[in-house]
Amino acid sequence: MNYGEQTIRFLNKPRVVSGYSIVGPKEAAGPLDPYFHKRIRKDDFGQKSFEKAECKLHMSAISGAIIEAGLTPKDIDVNIGGDLLNQIITSSFSARELDVPFIGMYSACSTFGQALIVGASLIDGGYVSYAACSTSSHFSTAERQYRYPLELGTQMTPTSQWTVTGSGCTLLGKTGGKVFVESATIGKVIDFGISDANNMGAAMAPAAAKTVSQHLKDTGRSADYYDYIVTGDLGIYGSKLFLKLLESEGINAAGVHKDCGQMIFDKKQRCPQGGSGAGCSSVVFNSYFMHHLKVGAIKKMLLVPTGALLSKVSSLQGETIPGIANAISFEREEDV
Amino acid sequence: MNYGEQTIRFLNKPRVVSGYSIVGPKEAAGPLDPYFHKRIRKDDFGQKSFEKAECKLHMSAISGAIIEAGLTPKDIDVNIGGDLLNQIITSSFSARELDVPFIGMYSACSTFGQALIVGASLIDGGYVSYAACSTSSHFSTAERQYRYPLELGTQMTPTSQWTVTGSGCTLLGKTGGKVFVESATIGKVIDFGISDANNMGAAMAPAAAKTVSQHLKDTGRSADYYDYIVTGDLGIYGSKLFLKLLESEGINAAGVHKDCGQMIFDKKQRCPQGGSGAGCSSVVFNSYFMHHLKVGAIKKMLLVPTGALLSKVSSLQGETIPGIANAISFEREEDV
Repeated sequence: MNYGEQTIRFLNKPRVVSGYSIVGPKEAAGPLDPYFHKRIRKDDFGQKSFEKAECKLHMSAISGAIIEAGLTPKDIDVNIGGDLLNQIITSSFSARELDVPFIGMYSACSTFGQALIVGASLIDGGYVSYAACSTSSHFSTAERQYRYPLELGTQMTPTSQWTVTGSGCTLLGKTGGKVFVESATIGKVIDFGISDANNMGAAMAPAAAKTVSQHLKDTGRSADYYDYIVTGDLGIYGSKLFLKLLESEGINAAGVHKDCGQMIFDKKQRCPQGGSGAGCSSVVFNSYFMHHLKVGAIKKMLLVPTGALLSKVSSLQGETIPGIANAISFEREEDV
Repeated sequence: MNYGEQTIRFLNKPRVVSGYSIVGPKEAAGPLDPYFHKRIRKDDFGQKSFEKAECKLHMSAISGAIIEAGLTPKDIDVNIGGDLLNQIITSSFSARELDVPFIGMYSACSTFGQALIVGASLIDGGYVSYAACSTSSHFSTAERQYRYPLELGTQMTPTSQWTVTGSGCTLLGKTGGKVFVESATIGKVIDFGISDANNMGAAMAPAAAKTVSQHLKDTGRSADYYDYIVTGDLGIYGSKLFLKLLESEGINAAGVHKDCGQMIFDKKQRCPQGGSGAGCSSVVFNSYFMHHLKVGAIKKMLLVPTGALLSKVSSLQGETIPGIANAISFEREEDV
């Protein structure tokens, strides 16, 4: 790679032109509510199925980001999107409505990271002018696909996370605004032998620690170079494990660490470990962090979406759950 | 985009360093057998499940391409891979063994096209030195996931295609050999209202025609600029429809058109329309076409992997099947 072993440096500073987040009622009842762009009142978003609802969320996020930027879909060169559903039907069906070239991504809850990396590369290399990077998830589509039918009302285990209902889209462009993608580290697939589909924080923490430590090594930075190092959805236990693993490599990130999964719900909302899902890091980044970057309250942050690479079939066949994490460094130019 | 509406031009000529193809017994019994690098004797490849067999195929293809290039996994900056299984577990689990940064892709049977486009962009932009672009499919994993349990012995309809068991990997690099990626057109998601999961050729043909016609428009070329325009897996009917749709736009591609799905099996093999699957275009490209490009018998070709964007859930919910197609232009430098 052009910046160490796993890291890409973007010399042309691809810009974060706009961001948009749309969330479900439970997310809107959480502490980040003031930062979200739109809230839906009912999980089904007026659609016949939760899958169609998720698709409408996904489309709304992309349209929202385009409008926020003062552009129209015709200006967008490519939509790079993904979600958790089998064959990423949410993103594909949403791209069908958009009439924009489409690249489909899958990296579980780290998909947003991949989308940003590919989008930033395409812009930085001069191939495209605007790339819409979008992901989504929906509690009701994910729960019944990965775990149990919703009608069972299965109790959550203490280590489980609540899949975020929502979609986020970041519009990257050649020009526009002061926030840019500075560099990115592409993650490796790491397996620590966890096989409990209700303990994904533990499955993802080693990958997150590995990617962050590699990023710091590749760039020659210490953790406090960043105002924040923000993991996707490690949850409470996963975050502790992540910090411990970094500590064992001599990296102290406790002072700058935040986790989107922990931020999106508060304790009263009864989501044992916090939120998760391909929409989790993207709605939190495109609301809370986007706001703080734009106004200059955050100058440098490393976003580290984390993914647990499992399927129903892989779990039933006794496979363990490998994790992956990608790191994207955002910086804001100084005001003159 | 930097070369018309949907097309990217790669000015640094990212090289096709090597290619590798591994196939199942049925594919090895077909007309392309002499070109494949490896054949497995039994569909299960000595594994406990067909899913694990597909994973082993995928890994073998990547390793094969790396060895063919005289490199080791340590030299590879990124593996860009995908497959048809839910949550692309084949590619993810195969990346776990590889210990190489991983970008997961999904675009149904057009995944190989997406992987090549992202790989070529990362190399052309100077971000990475070597990218392994890999896809796979397996008849037995796909059939039971998308359609019926294998044990039912369901008869195929006249319009259906046989999912190819196999995996192909193309290793792209900054330098190496005379064949390079010249340009690429990213497809849009196109829906013509087909809802029969056994008639995917018809679902994909409009997307293929649209992408090819846009590619020719963006580059100012006519169809016979290319020695071959090679679609992924339209099958017999789908290919006819593809040529008719192009004809209606005044483009005559009949003389240069080939379809990987039609090439891989012969009529005696009782696959009504030919082959399909994310492995179809990748094994055919990395065997037959790779050989002819390397020796100079083909100087210019446009590879157009085609995908049908459906899932079991989307079909059951009455959704139609949108299609997508990406076009990648390969050229070979003249011998001096």
